[in-house]
Amino acid sequence: MKRTTQILFALLLCVGFARPIPTGPESARAEVAALLTTQVRSWNQGDLNAFMQGYWQSDRTEYVGSGGIVQGWKAIQQRYQRTYQHGKSMGRLRFKNLQVTLLAPDAALAVGEYALQLRQSGDKTSKGFFTLVLRRFPEGWRIINDHTSAYITKP
Amino acid sequence: MKRTTQILFALLLCVGFARPIPTGPESARAEVAALLTTQVRSWNQGDLNAFMQGYWQSDRTEYVGSGGIVQGWKAIQQRYQRTYQHGKSMGRLRFKNLQVTLLAPDAALAVGEYALQLRQSGDKTSKGFFTLVLRRFPEGWRIINDHTSAYITKP
Repeated sequence: MKRTTQILFALLLCVGFARPIPTGPESARAEVAALLTTQVRSWNQGDLNAFMQGYWQSDRTEYVGSGGIVQGWKAIQQRYQRTYQHGKSMGRLRFKNLQVTLLAPDAALAVGEYALQLRQSGDKTSKGFFTLVLRRFPEGWRIINDHTSAYITKP
Repeated sequence: MKRTTQILFALLLCVGFARPIPTGPESARAEVAALLTTQVRSWNQGDLNAFMQGYWQSDRTEYVGSGGIVQGWKAIQQRYQRTYQHGKSMGRLRFKNLQVTLLAPDAALAVGEYALQLRQSGDKTSKGFFTLVLRRFPEGWRIINDHTSAYITKP
């Protein structure tokens, strides 16, 4: 190889290292959206364990809700179990107006609206907004921070 | 230069390009914390314009609160003006338990608690949580998404 070829090869190698994740922004955003679609499907099947797979299994994962900050995957799971009585009353969940912004090849922000219709409360639907921060791990994209708050209608 | 020296030089140059921001994680987190401290100080001085400098001046900046999603820097400023009557009743703001997580050299997540004591409501203090996503721009760190929700105490 000539010198210039060698330098070019070194630079190309380096560009390879600077981009550890091969997929582009569009496919990364599609992957995040797919994760959330899977979560909604799991929720509507009453499968809390499958739903919880969307969260990073770490003590550092956080859920911020009306009751304050819940710290850690296990505590978040227990909060869902407590609030939704072990899948007996998980109801029907829908997400809409989802926007995914890629912050880095391995970090994303997802913002959207939820509507949760609980069977026992008749037509009453809880509605609100969620802001999710996700990271890409070897196992895929996972939520590391979930801030969910109910919409308060002003008179 | 020898061939190996040239290749090494090209690699070093490349590492330089792969890290466009020279500061380390600790100083980046300190910069984010400093931005928020400045925001609190501005708020407590009744200076909404200075407070608003903490947000990215873009139509894509989002504030998610109890009233829904507010889209764009200008609309966020107008919401603050409407809610806090042009600085006349901004009250006293405090942040606590701030945690800053660096997601990339130019992206960060900040989670914390706020307490806002409004003068006209006596001892009544509004408390809650915020999740901020920030990006580093040429002008410094700015909030691109703010999800703030009030703490609801359960009986």
